[in-house]
Amino acid sequence: MGIVVQKYGGSSVADAVGIKRVAQRIVNTKKQGHDVVVVVSAMGDTTDELIDLANEVTPLPPARELDMLLTAGERISMAVLAMAIQTLGYEARSFTGSQAGVITDAEHGKAKIIDVRPGRILGAVADGAIAIVAGFQGVSQTTKDITTLGRGGSDTTAVALAVALEADVCEIYSDVDGIFTADPRIEPRARKIPRISYEETLEMAAQGAKILHLRCVEYARRYDMPIHVRSSFSEREGTWVVKDPQAGVAQESLMESAIITGVAHDRSQAKITVVGVPDKVGEAAAIFRAIADAQINIDMIVQNVSAAATGLTDISFTLPRGEGQMAMAALAKLQSTVGYERLGYDDSVGKVSVVGAGMSTSPGISARFFESLSEAGVNIEMISTSEIRVSVVVSETQVEAAVNAAHAAFELGTDEVEAVVYGGTGR
Amino acid sequence: MGIVVQKYGGSSVADAVGIKRVAQRIVNTKKQGHDVVVVVSAMGDTTDELIDLANEVTPLPPARELDMLLTAGERISMAVLAMAIQTLGYEARSFTGSQAGVITDAEHGKAKIIDVRPGRILGAVADGAIAIVAGFQGVSQTTKDITTLGRGGSDTTAVALAVALEADVCEIYSDVDGIFTADPRIEPRARKIPRISYEETLEMAAQGAKILHLRCVEYARRYDMPIHVRSSFSEREGTWVVKDPQAGVAQESLMESAIITGVAHDRSQAKITVVGVPDKVGEAAAIFRAIADAQINIDMIVQNVSAAATGLTDISFTLPRGEGQMAMAALAKLQSTVGYERLGYDDSVGKVSVVGAGMSTSPGISARFFESLSEAGVNIEMISTSEIRVSVVVSETQVEAAVNAAHAAFELGTDEVEAVVYGGTGR
Repeated sequence: MGIVVQKYGGSSVADAVGIKRVAQRIVNTKKQGHDVVVVVSAMGDTTDELIDLANEVTPLPPARELDMLLTAGERISMAVLAMAIQTLGYEARSFTGSQAGVITDAEHGKAKIIDVRPGRILGAVADGAIAIVAGFQGVSQTTKDITTLGRGGSDTTAVALAVALEADVCEIYSDVDGIFTADPRIEPRARKIPRISYEETLEMAAQGAKILHLRCVEYARRYDMPIHVRSSFSEREGTWVVKDPQAGVAQESLMESAIITGVAHDRSQAKITVVGVPDKVGEAAAIFRAIADAQINIDMIVQNVSAAATGLTDISFTLPRGEGQMAMAALAKLQSTVGYERLGYDDSVGKVSVVGAGMSTSPGISARFFESLSEAGVNIEMISTSEIRVSVVVSETQVEAAVNAAHAAFELGTDEVEAVVYGGTGR
Repeated sequence: MGIVVQKYGGSSVADAVGIKRVAQRIVNTKKQGHDVVVVVSAMGDTTDELIDLANEVTPLPPARELDMLLTAGERISMAVLAMAIQTLGYEARSFTGSQAGVITDAEHGKAKIIDVRPGRILGAVADGAIAIVAGFQGVSQTTKDITTLGRGGSDTTAVALAVALEADVCEIYSDVDGIFTADPRIEPRARKIPRISYEETLEMAAQGAKILHLRCVEYARRYDMPIHVRSSFSEREGTWVVKDPQAGVAQESLMESAIITGVAHDRSQAKITVVGVPDKVGEAAAIFRAIADAQINIDMIVQNVSAAATGLTDISFTLPRGEGQMAMAALAKLQSTVGYERLGYDDSVGKVSVVGAGMSTSPGISARFFESLSEAGVNIEMISTSEIRVSVVVSETQVEAAVNAAHAAFELGTDEVEAVVYGGTGR
């Protein structure tokens, strides 16, 4: 059998009890005949505690030193995990990102992996040992300084290592059983999705489902590395993220396969409306150049048809709430040049999306989605679509009703409540 | 001006307040025109907390992984210290032992430094930056694994770096003002020693004075690197440990210079007596071979003259209390072959030593020492001497009286109480 890469998040190794449980799981996989390479995050709240410590001496920690500091977190968890495995009678060796050959650029805090040279990991595996690798970290090719990969870094480390090691699968463990058709906390009939494509997973993640980080899924898609998302608290099969979810699935199941894979929602956004923009060439460009120059990522954009009588139009867009005030300040500076009437800001909005690869060949998805919202009394404020997704912005108070309505309309539900917890994947 | 190496122990960087205070001291040294390279220990109790964490998963942590775990401690303190310095407007870069070029053998937990290749440190210094180096750690030349240097490791890192960088001085900071003529906690008239030789410092340390670790002083002596022992809590001059303490000191001061430099004491030992050993060739050898095979370090040994009538003798020796039961077990196995009568064990003993380089040319030191103890009513159980030291073992309850008596007999005291605290130097 080949190599299995397993990634355990901070919630799985939050304390000594968790570490021992994870050690036992790793040993069980080894006993089944696999070579095992493990990527581990920092224990529980360690990263936040280290950031707090840094903030005790400076409000703006220098990036190189913050990376040096934060990488202490995985160093602790990986060493203790290796100890716990050895206590079970199996050899284990821990490796920092640098020792594992995770080579990055020099962008501290958000470094990108540019190469993986897993010579020492392969050496450990050849010796029959279980290799434990620190997630989230690497070493800069140019400066030789320690770097961190930023959010989702440990998942990305795991997939990148799996690719470099030509592993059979990259297993991503957290405290949830897999990817669900909707957040079970607001949709009790949510069902675990057994298999899902990279593209659908990307859309679900981008639309607010806290399952896998975009970077890691993009990396897996580029190299066609299967990801198995599962819980470290149960032995159940989780969700397989693969290139072709229907490959190998029996034909009768295919017939029944859903057009929509899941419903995602996102409560982290705000909506800005620029009211009364003169409808002439270059005005919209000026607005979005100002936003881009302020390093703000915007999501959905809607421009109304201009009223012929006034020659004025409204432009609305959504963006992360945390960047709302910065964007408003950038736009305020434009009023004299662009000549808009006023700005509107609304942070009590939510986004609800239906995602499914079958959508592109099934007409009427948008209609069915909008009808279900209408029947549930949900008012649609904005709409955007992609090849495999339809998203709407609604009032934050109507997010739950919208998720429930869409989930029912596309018959995603089950009678059995499978999961109670639906959490983040850590970093 | 040249390079100054400064080493700060865990008590100096116990929290954010301490780190900021140390950062200010470092910047002050830089402002005086020195290039500064700093070696730092883990914050406060970090090392003990990490050991506790390891013990939560295994009673006997594997050495390689324990080193990986413990080195997280300095990683945290050095990164936060570098941040604090940068907040003061000076560039600072932290380096792990490996990055600083501290090359060791592969003996995890007690690695020896075999080379220092400080290329990156010199690069940082050439850029005008303050280099912050993790103490206590290195990287194995053969396995490329992370190692720790064991007790006194940070002091040794500092001296080794100072030698490799050809620094002007290695400053060792702790929470005491320097090396004292006796422990001020039991001898209120104790006086700070301004200058002391490597040899005297070694004897003081070996005899229980918790000032500098033997390894670091031995390293400094081998390469003639001056050590300045001082407090991070005051600006006072501390104690200079040098090759020739009287060099450059005015002749009239020399005339008055004390024959005895200080009084050390040690409450960490136990005494074992093997009673009724047949006085023939090879019996003592058999006893000490058994002790050595059990990896126990013994200190003083006394063998009584055998009583002619019985042909039996008693052999007593001292050893660290923690190893007492192991030694007793090793000796118990010998009873049938060596044929001794019985074993005695006493862990309520203490050792008091007078140390001074002037001793070798001043007769009568032992007599004056023993007379002072006699006048104080202190009973001497064992005696051992070196070229520059006389040590006695006494009852633990009489240690304080013995220190006071010796301190007064050799006129080491001052009327002024200089220090209240007299602590360890951390690791």
